[in-house]
Amino acid sequence: MITATPFDFPYDGRLIAENTALVVIDLQQDFLSTTGYFARQGYDPSPLRAILPTVSRLITAARKAGIRIVHTRQGYRADMADMTPYEKWRRKRAGLEGTEILLRSGPGFQIVPEIDVAPQDIIVDKTCNSAFTYTDFELVLRAQGITHLLFSGCTTDVCVHTTLREACDRNFQCLTISDACASGDQKAHEAALHMVTVEDGVFGALAESSAVIAALSRLSGAKG
Amino acid sequence: MITATPFDFPYDGRLIAENTALVVIDLQQDFLSTTGYFARQGYDPSPLRAILPTVSRLITAARKAGIRIVHTRQGYRADMADMTPYEKWRRKRAGLEGTEILLRSGPGFQIVPEIDVAPQDIIVDKTCNSAFTYTDFELVLRAQGITHLLFSGCTTDVCVHTTLREACDRNFQCLTISDACASGDQKAHEAALHMVTVEDGVFGALAESSAVIAALSRLSGAKG
Amino acid sequence: MITATPFDFPYDGRLIAENTALVVIDLQQDFLSTTGYFARQGYDPSPLRAILPTVSRLITAARKAGIRIVHTRQGYRADMADMTPYEKWRRKRAGLEGTEILLRSGPGFQIVPEIDVAPQDIIVDKTCNSAFTYTDFELVLRAQGITHLLFSGCTTDVCVHTTLREACDRNFQCLTISDACASGDQKAHEAALHMVTVEDGVFGALAESSAVIAALSRLSGAKG
Amino acid sequence: MITATPFDFPYDGRLIAENTALVVIDLQQDFLSTTGYFARQGYDPSPLRAILPTVSRLITAARKAGIRIVHTRQGYRADMADMTPYEKWRRKRAGLEGTEILLRSGPGFQIVPEIDVAPQDIIVDKTCNSAFTYTDFELVLRAQGITHLLFSGCTTDVCVHTTLREACDRNFQCLTISDACASGDQKAHEAALHMVTVEDGVFGALAESSAVIAALSRLSGAKG
Repeated sequence: MITATPFDFPYDGRLIAENTALVVIDLQQDFLSTTGYFARQGYDPSPLRAILPTVSRLITAARKAGIRIVHTRQGYRADMADMTPYEKWRRKRAGLEGTEILLRSGPGFQIVPEIDVAPQDIIVDKTCNSAFTYTDFELVLRAQGITHLLFSGCTTDVCVHTTLREACDRNFQCLTISDACASGDQKAHEAALHMVTVEDGVFGALAESSAVIAALSRLSGAKG
Repeated sequence: MITATPFDFPYDGRLIAENTALVVIDLQQDFLSTTGYFARQGYDPSPLRAILPTVSRLITAARKAGIRIVHTRQGYRADMADMTPYEKWRRKRAGLEGTEILLRSGPGFQIVPEIDVAPQDIIVDKTCNSAFTYTDFELVLRAQGITHLLFSGCTTDVCVHTTLREACDRNFQCLTISDACASGDQKAHEAALHMVTVEDGVFGALAESSAVIAALSRLSGAKG
Repeated sequence: MITATPFDFPYDGRLIAENTALVVIDLQQDFLSTTGYFARQGYDPSPLRAILPTVSRLITAARKAGIRIVHTRQGYRADMADMTPYEKWRRKRAGLEGTEILLRSGPGFQIVPEIDVAPQDIIVDKTCNSAFTYTDFELVLRAQGITHLLFSGCTTDVCVHTTLREACDRNFQCLTISDACASGDQKAHEAALHMVTVEDGVFGALAESSAVIAALSRLSGAKG
Repeated sequence: MITATPFDFPYDGRLIAENTALVVIDLQQDFLSTTGYFARQGYDPSPLRAILPTVSRLITAARKAGIRIVHTRQGYRADMADMTPYEKWRRKRAGLEGTEILLRSGPGFQIVPEIDVAPQDIIVDKTCNSAFTYTDFELVLRAQGITHLLFSGCTTDVCVHTTLREACDRNFQCLTISDACASGDQKAHEAALHMVTVEDGVFGALAESSAVIAALSRLSGAKG
């Protein structure tokens, strides 16, 4: 059981490692580096880099508890076959034409080295903001019997929240880890966390990483 | 063309009535009445009621321009066959057990009488926050050749935003009408509008109803 | 456990009433009556009518065992908002223009009276051949914890098979009941049953209704 | 316009290269080689190999006409994260445990060298029989403005037909090329082709490769 707001997670008190995944959204060079997509859009990637130690602690605790880690990566096909004329127009407007930014072939697509990606982790590549839309994310989760998702990564207001919303609509049990998510827009970040809890938890529960790590340690202890 | 932020809508200047729909999200008694779901969750429905004249003006302008209206309604099946144990737990926690609140059989499911629902309008009933998930919304839009969506309704931060995000991921061209959306949580409402425009329009464009009505009038004029 | 080909169902021997549904596809007047869609397409609905007693026996056995019944109904929206120009062209070509055939407003949309539809049954209305596509079928199944599907209804080669294929792709455990399915095209019916078993059960297992009823009786006995 | 049964394709006579794709399903070593999945399931891959010259002629004609080629590949993730216990049981039953057969890491996953895969072609990797389910196939098609699909590949009764059925449900205009599809089960192959045409073309139209190539040549001529 993880101490959370507006109710503890999961609601029925049954936190089971085999049924739970830590979802790490888009911690890629394109969002975190000073030369990637996000920085070129005029955002300071510092708040995104600031969560890396917290996410790393969560990954370590999750591995010990026997919880699967799912990393998502945002990026278009190298040949842009999945990009619409509108997206190409936005790309040009952002001065990205002719670059490999946000393409799967570019260096920005890679997860930053501070994040430990293990061979047994699951990686889901996506074009959309939601990790569910046009990917095998749901297929993999259900094949693994995963029903509970712990959300971390960036950006809180865009890809984390879109994926979280879709996960709730598909009836996954969802927890957002407040200090393990970040955005370049502090106001949007805070509002996104707040939105989780409206209507008494319309998008599930919200917890701090310390509460999550404490609960995962108890799970590990129970195993050991 | 509709004057909008961070860019005019649609991006290529081609606003075509046949390809455009005005989406009116969940303007139902359960959200707007003083005895419905939303009021019983502790929210003041006044801000939701306050947009009704604006939405009505938009509906009138859209009809004149030959733009289809899509109304969505949120509600579970009367026998709750589409409700999980978790959702039943939340329902009980909210004191809604034994009521017809948020059920398709209840009076709260109906669209408020202030909104003109015409026989040629399209109604999409949904269980999820997104109008796309487990419904025929996308089927109907594509069958009609609709590619451009103008968003209004409630609540801005929950059902409007979840549907908007899914629409963007499916590559519909999206405009959110700021003063035709509302929430019981003013901070969440404002942040949701702001989020549309992050990353230079990650969820499309944002406009005021006056700009939309002006553009629709020009469309009507061109027709007449 | 149900005796089946090419392997017994379910594969792990764990047949649990709460996790199982009997799916009854499209036993509607439009397919079974002598004046409905199917008859007007030139097919003899007799083979479809011939399975009604078998499906009824399965429904009775399923109810006794505590297995949910899901009926599907095929039909377009009354205003044809979900119909493409191509589908309207096919409709005209079939001489159906101006009729209510295959519309949800018409008498052909109703399930035939020989089939007992109980208040606790689940009805899924669909426009597509697959009951999964653009409906809440998957939502309801997962909300109910249903993971195992027993297929019956019509037509074997079109709507039964399309829904069966999608169910397999979504990792539901599937059994097709050979003598509880029918088509107006005997060759297509037989081939569709055969296809279930290619590649050693690529679309799950195939059983006769007698084997299914025997297994459901054992489940009921275990309960009683 | 392509001469086809039960009606010419497309129904409105407007064959446009930019809106059309040639879909080549699963022409991989696992299905065509004498040591792959299909051969180990006891099927003779000769009928699958026999269509290769026809598919190659279609690819050449499509390229000349400016029609996009989409190749699909069937295979599980190398670590089998997308495989259920049931699928692992079937895998073991087929004697495939410990092999790389049907895994994306194995040599059987590769498209056979007889098929010309060009850099501008689109490749869609899938786990399901349908190329639409849990993939970006639909995203890519719609992003490219592709609305018309010409089907070839293997096997006619399983992956071609499942994808074809889903394409029809999503309102793509579909043509199956009879002599460019194959199966190891001749009866299932013939029945699958027949099923396309039931109910006066319930899954679109059926044509021979010679008719398709003739039409594509006319398109090329019109361009040249």
